[in-house]
Amino acid sequence: MTIKLNDVAEVAGVSPTTVSRVINNRGYISEKTKQKVESAMKELSYYPNDVARSLYKKRTYLVGLIIPDISNPFYGELSLAIEGICSDVGYRVILCNSLGQPEKEEAYSVMLIRNQVDGIIVCSYNRDVETYKKSNLPIVAIDHYLAETIPVVGSDNYEGGKMAVQHLIERGCKSIIHINGPAELETPTQLRRKAYEDLIKKPITYVVKSPFDEEEIIQTIKKIFNEYPETDGIFASDDLMAASCLQIAEEMNIEVPKQLKIVGYDGTSTVNRLLPQLTTIKQPIEDIASTAVSQMMELIKHPDKELHRETFLSPQIIINKTT
Amino acid sequence: MTIKLNDVAEVAGVSPTTVSRVINNRGYISEKTKQKVESAMKELSYYPNDVARSLYKKRTYLVGLIIPDISNPFYGELSLAIEGICSDVGYRVILCNSLGQPEKEEAYSVMLIRNQVDGIIVCSYNRDVETYKKSNLPIVAIDHYLAETIPVVGSDNYEGGKMAVQHLIERGCKSIIHINGPAELETPTQLRRKAYEDLIKKPITYVVKSPFDEEEIIQTIKKIFNEYPETDGIFASDDLMAASCLQIAEEMNIEVPKQLKIVGYDGTSTVNRLLPQLTTIKQPIEDIASTAVSQMMELIKHPDKELHRETFLSPQIIINKTT
Repeated sequence: MTIKLNDVAEVAGVSPTTVSRVINNRGYISEKTKQKVESAMKELSYYPNDVARSLYKKRTYLVGLIIPDISNPFYGELSLAIEGICSDVGYRVILCNSLGQPEKEEAYSVMLIRNQVDGIIVCSYNRDVETYKKSNLPIVAIDHYLAETIPVVGSDNYEGGKMAVQHLIERGCKSIIHINGPAELETPTQLRRKAYEDLIKKPITYVVKSPFDEEEIIQTIKKIFNEYPETDGIFASDDLMAASCLQIAEEMNIEVPKQLKIVGYDGTSTVNRLLPQLTTIKQPIEDIASTAVSQMMELIKHPDKELHRETFLSPQIIINKTT
Repeated sequence: MTIKLNDVAEVAGVSPTTVSRVINNRGYISEKTKQKVESAMKELSYYPNDVARSLYKKRTYLVGLIIPDISNPFYGELSLAIEGICSDVGYRVILCNSLGQPEKEEAYSVMLIRNQVDGIIVCSYNRDVETYKKSNLPIVAIDHYLAETIPVVGSDNYEGGKMAVQHLIERGCKSIIHINGPAELETPTQLRRKAYEDLIKKPITYVVKSPFDEEEIIQTIKKIFNEYPETDGIFASDDLMAASCLQIAEEMNIEVPKQLKIVGYDGTSTVNRLLPQLTTIKQPIEDIASTAVSQMMELIKHPDKELHRETFLSPQIIINKTT
């Protein structure tokens, strides 16, 4: 049997309107009445229906989070931070893994709008998802340009790329190769590549088409060692790629860091625990999360507010044994 | 300006009732009318309000997922699988990280009930969360006993523990130590410890009180090497602990696997990519996820159905270079 508001009113000895006022914190209610109602709610295990409330409040306190893959350590830590901050301000997060598929992302974005979420944070690999452009919802993007009007938050990718490449040069590398995802010029992460190209005379970038496909990454790295056996430095655009470089170097008896130096990107705690020897560029994940959430909250409160289109936060180099 | 159902009706040249019927798939509608309505919806970027619909349907198609920490590779992969399966059957997942804090978990469970979720999947470290016992909601637990009536799904932890310890014995280990979380006898993961104790004459288990506290793990492992320098085998109850063992062994110049053999538990893809040398017990994450979701769906459809109280799925040993 479902407990109803009227049952609470009866047990508390007050009118249903009074119960409703306590729940919604509306109008004047004496402390004594409030306590009576709250203890009746507790006694009956009554839970107010937030769905019904959200209809007249025009707020659901739900936000959507679209990421490629929560099992990737970077997205895992970013999601943990985003969910924690949202929870602190009374919001819950609907998790959506797009798996890098535009049609899946489109379906998720439509679903989120139909579920009346108050806002969406998008950190995904797809552009051209129509819904974002048409929607009037507050949307904040992480590391991706979605549309002219949508603010972007991320680490300063150019600065991070520069740190990585300069460090390899300082450590004496003469033939530095860069590995990155597909060159979408509108993606801020491509600035890591730009920094590499600006610092190296004859830049050679290997592209992994599906950055989550381990097999493609491994084949790409093997190709590097075959085509450029003189390679003595690799700047990989994420830590999982860097880990694969390390693994293949070991298989091919290439000594790290003596013959080959490797720098990754992301610097999550998980990677640091599992692969503490990796030199990497650590993204300010907590800052990215809190900036993205607070921008979204600003847009929820003031839909017409003009925000900075781009906010790039400083990364940090973590030097370990691979360099 | 928000687009309303009446606007769609006007553009499609039909009555609002007809639009409503198309959206809710109710009553007879000709294919032609359906197409007119759908193209008007698309033209106007109209999204039906699923919150309003959920009120009369008594279903929100939302499920809650309570886990300790999404950034842990095991929970990350489990959540990816659960969210993917839910999405395939039209459900969305509200993500809740309890961070191992009972009061946070209690608050999340109340919030989920107030948001009228259709069910909850719980994979957390806390017992005695009152809400689970009182709630009439469909709840499925992963690896934890929450209440008499709540079904539990997990890997066969006794079998997994046995595989790990037998393997260390077969590889010639004479002094095998086990590391585990706090001994809560009602937690199925403690069966890993039970298997170890059944197979070893003088079992020695080191307990890490906060299994997510890296510093405590490191101090515990150092203590092992100080108190039992003869240790030649470690069975760690998760892969992150095993990774810390490996790291400290390296710092202390203990050769792995020659002087010390290490087996972990979980066997996620992330750990496999970052630490491919680790021997581990691989949990059937996909199977656990699909069993948990399908049990929850059964309970949503048939709230009074009696399900197996326990479903334990077979793990698998993955032998690598640490043994």
